[in-house]
Amino acid sequence: MIINGNTNASLNAAEDPESITAPLISHQRYAPNSTSQVALVGANILENEFFKQDWRSCGKAHVLQYIFMKWVSCFLVGIVVGLIAFCNNLAVENIAGVKFVVTSNMMLQRRFWLAFAVFFFSNLGLTLFAVVVTAFVAPAAAGSGIPEVKAYLNGVDAPGIYSIKTLLVKIVGSVTAVSSSLLIGKAGPMVHTGACVASLLGQGGSKKHGLTWKWLRYFKNDRDRRDLVTCGAAAGIGASFRSPVGGVLFVFEEWWRSALLWRAFFTTAVIAIVLRALIDVCYSGKCGLFGTGGLIMFDVYSANISYHITDVPPVLLLGFVGGILGSLYNSLLTKVIRIYNIIHERGVVYKILIACTVSIFTSCLLFGLPWLATCRPCPRDAVEACPTIGRSGNYKKFQCPAGHYNDLASLIFNTNDDAIRNLFSKNTDSEFQYSSMIIFFVTSGLFVPVIVTGASYGRFFGMLVGKHSNLNHGLYAVLGAAALLGGTMRMTVSLCVIILELTNNLLLLPLIMVVLLVSKTTADAFNSNIYDLIMKAKGLPYLESHVEPYMRQLTVADVVTGPLQLFQGIEKVGNIVHVLRTTGHNGFPVIDEPPLSETPVLFGIVLRAHLIELLKKKAFVSNPVLTSTDSFKLFSSVDFAKRGSGKGDKIEDIELTEEEMEMFIDLHPFTNTSPYTVVETMSLAKALILFREVGLRHLLVIPKLSNRTPVVGILTRHDFMPEHILSLHPMLVSSRWKRLRFQLPSPPKLI
Amino acid sequence: MIINGNTNASLNAAEDPESITAPLISHQRYAPNSTSQVALVGANILENEFFKQDWRSCGKAHVLQYIFMKWVSCFLVGIVVGLIAFCNNLAVENIAGVKFVVTSNMMLQRRFWLAFAVFFFSNLGLTLFAVVVTAFVAPAAAGSGIPEVKAYLNGVDAPGIYSIKTLLVKIVGSVTAVSSSLLIGKAGPMVHTGACVASLLGQGGSKKHGLTWKWLRYFKNDRDRRDLVTCGAAAGIGASFRSPVGGVLFVFEEWWRSALLWRAFFTTAVIAIVLRALIDVCYSGKCGLFGTGGLIMFDVYSANISYHITDVPPVLLLGFVGGILGSLYNSLLTKVIRIYNIIHERGVVYKILIACTVSIFTSCLLFGLPWLATCRPCPRDAVEACPTIGRSGNYKKFQCPAGHYNDLASLIFNTNDDAIRNLFSKNTDSEFQYSSMIIFFVTSGLFVPVIVTGASYGRFFGMLVGKHSNLNHGLYAVLGAAALLGGTMRMTVSLCVIILELTNNLLLLPLIMVVLLVSKTTADAFNSNIYDLIMKAKGLPYLESHVEPYMRQLTVADVVTGPLQLFQGIEKVGNIVHVLRTTGHNGFPVIDEPPLSETPVLFGIVLRAHLIELLKKKAFVSNPVLTSTDSFKLFSSVDFAKRGSGKGDKIEDIELTEEEMEMFIDLHPFTNTSPYTVVETMSLAKALILFREVGLRHLLVIPKLSNRTPVVGILTRHDFMPEHILSLHPMLVSSRWKRLRFQLPSPPKLI
Repeated sequence: MIINGNTNASLNAAEDPESITAPLISHQRYAPNSTSQVALVGANILENEFFKQDWRSCGKAHVLQYIFMKWVSCFLVGIVVGLIAFCNNLAVENIAGVKFVVTSNMMLQRRFWLAFAVFFFSNLGLTLFAVVVTAFVAPAAAGSGIPEVKAYLNGVDAPGIYSIKTLLVKIVGSVTAVSSSLLIGKAGPMVHTGACVASLLGQGGSKKHGLTWKWLRYFKNDRDRRDLVTCGAAAGIGASFRSPVGGVLFVFEEWWRSALLWRAFFTTAVIAIVLRALIDVCYSGKCGLFGTGGLIMFDVYSANISYHITDVPPVLLLGFVGGILGSLYNSLLTKVIRIYNIIHERGVVYKILIACTVSIFTSCLLFGLPWLATCRPCPRDAVEACPTIGRSGNYKKFQCPAGHYNDLASLIFNTNDDAIRNLFSKNTDSEFQYSSMIIFFVTSGLFVPVIVTGASYGRFFGMLVGKHSNLNHGLYAVLGAAALLGGTMRMTVSLCVIILELTNNLLLLPLIMVVLLVSKTTADAFNSNIYDLIMKAKGLPYLESHVEPYMRQLTVADVVTGPLQLFQGIEKVGNIVHVLRTTGHNGFPVIDEPPLSETPVLFGIVLRAHLIELLKKKAFVSNPVLTSTDSFKLFSSVDFAKRGSGKGDKIEDIELTEEEMEMFIDLHPFTNTSPYTVVETMSLAKALILFREVGLRHLLVIPKLSNRTPVVGILTRHDFMPEHILSLHPMLVSSRWKRLRFQLPSPPKLI
Repeated sequence: MIINGNTNASLNAAEDPESITAPLISHQRYAPNSTSQVALVGANILENEFFKQDWRSCGKAHVLQYIFMKWVSCFLVGIVVGLIAFCNNLAVENIAGVKFVVTSNMMLQRRFWLAFAVFFFSNLGLTLFAVVVTAFVAPAAAGSGIPEVKAYLNGVDAPGIYSIKTLLVKIVGSVTAVSSSLLIGKAGPMVHTGACVASLLGQGGSKKHGLTWKWLRYFKNDRDRRDLVTCGAAAGIGASFRSPVGGVLFVFEEWWRSALLWRAFFTTAVIAIVLRALIDVCYSGKCGLFGTGGLIMFDVYSANISYHITDVPPVLLLGFVGGILGSLYNSLLTKVIRIYNIIHERGVVYKILIACTVSIFTSCLLFGLPWLATCRPCPRDAVEACPTIGRSGNYKKFQCPAGHYNDLASLIFNTNDDAIRNLFSKNTDSEFQYSSMIIFFVTSGLFVPVIVTGASYGRFFGMLVGKHSNLNHGLYAVLGAAALLGGTMRMTVSLCVIILELTNNLLLLPLIMVVLLVSKTTADAFNSNIYDLIMKAKGLPYLESHVEPYMRQLTVADVVTGPLQLFQGIEKVGNIVHVLRTTGHNGFPVIDEPPLSETPVLFGIVLRAHLIELLKKKAFVSNPVLTSTDSFKLFSSVDFAKRGSGKGDKIEDIELTEEEMEMFIDLHPFTNTSPYTVVETMSLAKALILFREVGLRHLLVIPKLSNRTPVVGILTRHDFMPEHILSLHPMLVSSRWKRLRFQLPSPPKLI
């Protein structure tokens, strides 16, 4: 039996206590569109007497069980996410495939209006289904999901994003939405799905629905859940792009814990093997219309490619323009989200209406635009059949006469994956016309999947450069996709690996690196990355990893806001109930005062959730005396385990008699005695580094001079948000670090 | 002008102060073979009034200059390391190439003894040169260099490893040693070279040799230097394997700072482009014997490969056996290093003698062994000429008659890169005999480059599996190399990416992942990774990232040792000199006592280096009064800049008069007022997390009760070493986490 040394430190280790000292309602300015409170997650170990006792008492067998379960759960996440990804693709390829085949057949019979009707109503029906399911069953499943997962890894737990309802709706919704020809990416939903699966597995199933699994009870703490969700998100990227290494890097650009690397890698390895095995099955033709195109892998460049130093200038220009387009895309998307939020607040009917409008618009556009393209004669040396009939391919016939193809229809009248494959394909330099490429670029740019838009941008660029370059147009499409992705997501290493894994040619590496570097740098001059913008629009308090210079001028005492709620080591029940009812804080310092100690002294910090558990079990004594040893018998560690998101008991649900209110609780054994502390004179910058690097939720501030109270405040995530700090110290706004950003002229108010 | 937000926080930010409170001499048990002290590096920001003032006074132009220089220095590191890597390869290919060509020509004339003499004496000469240069000029250049760089990134600065002498000797020594047919890897020396280049650039040249560069003065602090060295090490891996992404991941598995990812990626991108451009030049045949084989890239699998679920069991077995072999290799290497250390202590003559012995032994082995192999007739369908004459190739003639080749000579009588290429090549399943493969496996296993041994192991395994598998033998060689590398280095993600980048086929990914997972898991059951073992043998105090369970039972007060040396805010010169002369500490808490404050209060921490600077400049006052504002005029920030490794002034060099000794220094403006602190009751586990995650060198321990001194101790790296803790608390040894490791029976005492 092998035990990995770095997994040994967290059996039954629940989360570092945290309190939202300043309740979230006072930070509405970060959450303009969110009326619900977000919870926070940390990454640290809670140490109180009770857990220590529990840790000491559990035998080696439990430790082994815990470590075994850690790996088994990663394995299960890999298997389940792999299966879901495969089924998603199977469903999309078959639903969308049947739609396109039926429509194409009618086109062949030249019954164009009937074809349009079939196309139009099937799209509308699928869209309606997706939006109704999302709006009525699980609103948290709306949107891409990546910003929410990124925020979770940063430490912010948006309500309901990992429930079983969200998972099911996400799967069904994304399949129908993608099939309905809405140009929507698959990666976002897969990341969210992966994170959901991991979170539910970590909870040991859904308690609400009676699906729990005893063995997984050790995972009921923030850190293990966060670890598992990290693996799940990596699995999501790994499955949607078949890019296992890229998936690991994607999550680790956000949240790094070296002990986790190893398990995340294992998870995505499982995904890779599951997908490989399932695709092997499909190669024998048992999967309906699901062909080789089902799961993205654009293995179009396995042949040697050569490029020289003269190819670098156009590639630099490609990256530069890609960066500008990417930042433009980001700022436009932010505006669209703002408008969507306004509609969203009007109610469900408006949501459905807008979805239907978009679907109708899309159907008309997709069906109408190819008519603009002129039919072109099939090339004589085409490798594949031309025109392509009854299956996906480079040469769609659409309305054209025999022996001709419609190049725009080949792109538009296809699933996303097939469109990308067409754009990336080599030896097809003469396939497309300028006009078709521009139309497709603009059309796809109206919707979400940046990779499609990027590919068409790159291909168009390649056509412009034409004979002046050694690179073929398909290669330019790959580089264009990289440029636009780099310009919107601003990730470097993970994006680079994902694109390499997609295209399966490492000789491209230097060019892709250059493009990504140039496009990210260019785009950074205009605005920040798309996920940050969406998180800001959604009001998720994302903590940046860098320190603003004015934070070095401030001490922690400058940002602590009060009043501070304290508890005594042995506290009256009535006081606890009163404080819990009147504040929204999640953690409270515990103080020992005379006669328990000579002078007032900080004992530790206690969590709201644990206090509620104590009140529920009525672990009261009639006199203020130490009762530590008895308390353990009343509780098991499961009582203090972390509940699923938002499933905790509420103080309002607890009813106590007058008599009980006059009794006492000995908080000592349930208090985390090792909270992280900073002296009030520490600079805010250094406190932020501690807070962010160690993954805290609460940071106690202690006084420099000892003649005062032993604790002067609590810092939480919100105290580190620049908006909060600058509202307390408005004169610092001028000394705020300004990125030297070009200000775009405000676009005309079309939307 | 674009400024990246995350680079804005460290202008003139020198290092967090650290003190080796317990002097290193008392930790000799970690450093059994090292008589010299190691310095420590941190990753944090120093905040004292002086630096704050300096920061406030420097204009926007300086900030821009700083950021600009950060990127320029990464660019320069990329260019320089790329050039060095290319020249290294060019030199090796030409020196070793000429040697092999001359020897082969004599073999063709059947003058075997003369051929042997040429081979023997050229090897001996080259080896002698390498060992003499290393031993007399720069002993720090001996060995692979990766453990030292890894230790540096972990926070330990071994003396002299980054000097200009070390760099030159490393380059010359590795070229000659590799050319002398000693089977030595190129990756280790390249990593060390990259780190050296980066460190020297960060210092702005070598001060000792008068090569300094004013613009780089902002980099004279630990954090910026460490960042640059990280990029340099990544560049080293990137250059030696032409694996830019793998290089970035390699260093980031050790030391993660998300702001750095972006610059490390840029550095390796520069490397990739430089190498590409230089190789383009060589394709036209201007580089002598340097052919396509010069820089490793085994692009041997660009064709499609197919494998099925039935291929998985043999691959699992391959990984399992590879893990066992890898751990065996680690334990043997540790023994060899121990013996080498004993010889090393005997003096330079013994070092030279052992090197010559190894060279003679190697020459005899390499020349003698191929005679054991039977000559085989050339295959009729061979793609390349058989036998290969006058160049590298799969079919070496050696002593064989016309139309025959010697398969063992094809492996042994070649450079490492060519041997690997032969092993990895496809469509050569019948090229090798079992006996040759075993002989080569054992021979290469005697020396360093694990990748060669692994490839021959895999090839042999593939020959055994034979027809029962769809995979060809070359593919097995790749997987075998992965298995053995995984079994020794125990890295996962970076190794995976490096192997993919080497072989340029991403379809291999699932198999490589499986092999790495199995071999690492298996090998972890026996011992720890090779770098940890070497660092332990070299006495470098490497701080593990995981927390041992017994650390949760201890508080920081349990491990603080002492006597603690304090300074007053205004301290007598004589006292400072006395303390600096009698202790080896690097940081001292500064206390304000009445009348400066009401009660004794912790003001901050001051560094030894800064105290020495103050003494040197004689910033003294005759009365104990506050003088803060005047002090700034005496100093510029350059005075407090970090010196090159070990180049700082010593207290012994400072001479003061009796009168001066009676004067005072106001330490306030030079004291870091925001040191990280922990309460003495905090568990050691949580203190370690803080120490490691934030990258500290000192952690102040403050008392829980305020009626005592305001600081009770300082924690440094050494206080967190398990050996130190267990020596203080021997009863915890039994509760130490035991990896369930198989104990190998002690090997017979051959060595």
